[in-house]
Amino acid sequence: MPKIIDHDKRRREIVDVAKRLMLEGGFEAATMRSIAAEAGFANGALKHYFPGKDSIIAATFESVLAEMDPEGALDNLDVPEGADPAQVLRDRLRQTMPLTDYAISAGRVLLVLWDHAASNPELAKIYRDFLQRWQSSTVSLLKYAQKGRAQSTDEELDALALEIISITIGANVVNLMHPKGEQVATYHQIIDNIIKRTQG
Amino acid sequence: MPKIIDHDKRRREIVDVAKRLMLEGGFEAATMRSIAAEAGFANGALKHYFPGKDSIIAATFESVLAEMDPEGALDNLDVPEGADPAQVLRDRLRQTMPLTDYAISAGRVLLVLWDHAASNPELAKIYRDFLQRWQSSTVSLLKYAQKGRAQSTDEELDALALEIISITIGANVVNLMHPKGEQVATYHQIIDNIIKRTQG
Repeated sequence: MPKIIDHDKRRREIVDVAKRLMLEGGFEAATMRSIAAEAGFANGALKHYFPGKDSIIAATFESVLAEMDPEGALDNLDVPEGADPAQVLRDRLRQTMPLTDYAISAGRVLLVLWDHAASNPELAKIYRDFLQRWQSSTVSLLKYAQKGRAQSTDEELDALALEIISITIGANVVNLMHPKGEQVATYHQIIDNIIKRTQG
Repeated sequence: MPKIIDHDKRRREIVDVAKRLMLEGGFEAATMRSIAAEAGFANGALKHYFPGKDSIIAATFESVLAEMDPEGALDNLDVPEGADPAQVLRDRLRQTMPLTDYAISAGRVLLVLWDHAASNPELAKIYRDFLQRWQSSTVSLLKYAQKGRAQSTDEELDALALEIISITIGANVVNLMHPKGEQVATYHQIIDNIIKRTQG
């Protein structure tokens, strides 16, 4: 009987290996050879799952972005009856912002991927699409947080959402340079300020 | 008579070449060999100015950061008598934020350098020191912009300054993915919102 191989699982394993290698040693550390070796494949077998490094990078990008999961934030978010909208917003922002040791070090993989997206239109499109989903889910989140209060205009919400996204991206870079979390408390303060402004 | 060589000028020329190569092709494009060739040096002669790629990167980092020149923003800024503090703040933020084609594409070099700083403590320190100077000059700028108005506490100013810095860094990444400047108008809106809040 032929061995049943779960190809999706294999692909996820390969992506996890690529992610770990990039996290530890940057882009150069994640070669087809080192990924294959770490995942326990022959070089040729790896190509059965991913034809080349670009396709592994694209899959890794998707995976890192899925971890942040801002997509459909509110649809997926199990908001309990009578939840405080400000608290829902606070929880969501804390979840997206790199505030834990793990999230801070994962920012390294994002740097690698941003760098390659800058010269690879396909990767740039992945990130651009992601930014768009992030933008619309943030707008929904802000609308929810303003429930029963003065509502901002669509233009104001768009600008505030891009501001929040930019702060989060910037926090990735800043916190990577302060790996002991020296700035984490200030980012908590910034989140509180965003909430105050949304509630104003 | 020996030829007089302006060593500082040569170093600046080499850094400019490295920056251009990184801008066009990322980190891999800026090898010692390609930098030497573009700058019109023999490989050995380049080492007279920079012992290795790390030292060229460090100098390039310093140069890119100097271009943003947030250091001592207000001391260097020639504020005319009776200038509108809000306008001074707006001008300064527009200058730092990547809003022009040139500034947007220069973000590519920053990506390369952030990536390498993440694994090189010396480069990380250059950027951390830069962030610190940026932070204190932004606090000074905010204090100036609040002249004759309700003053924020030091803690509030620290958080607002880090917020502005993070937005600027995030805008680098976002605008690199939108090289036609699709988000520039929204960043202008964000700057206006920051000013409104500072004046509030």
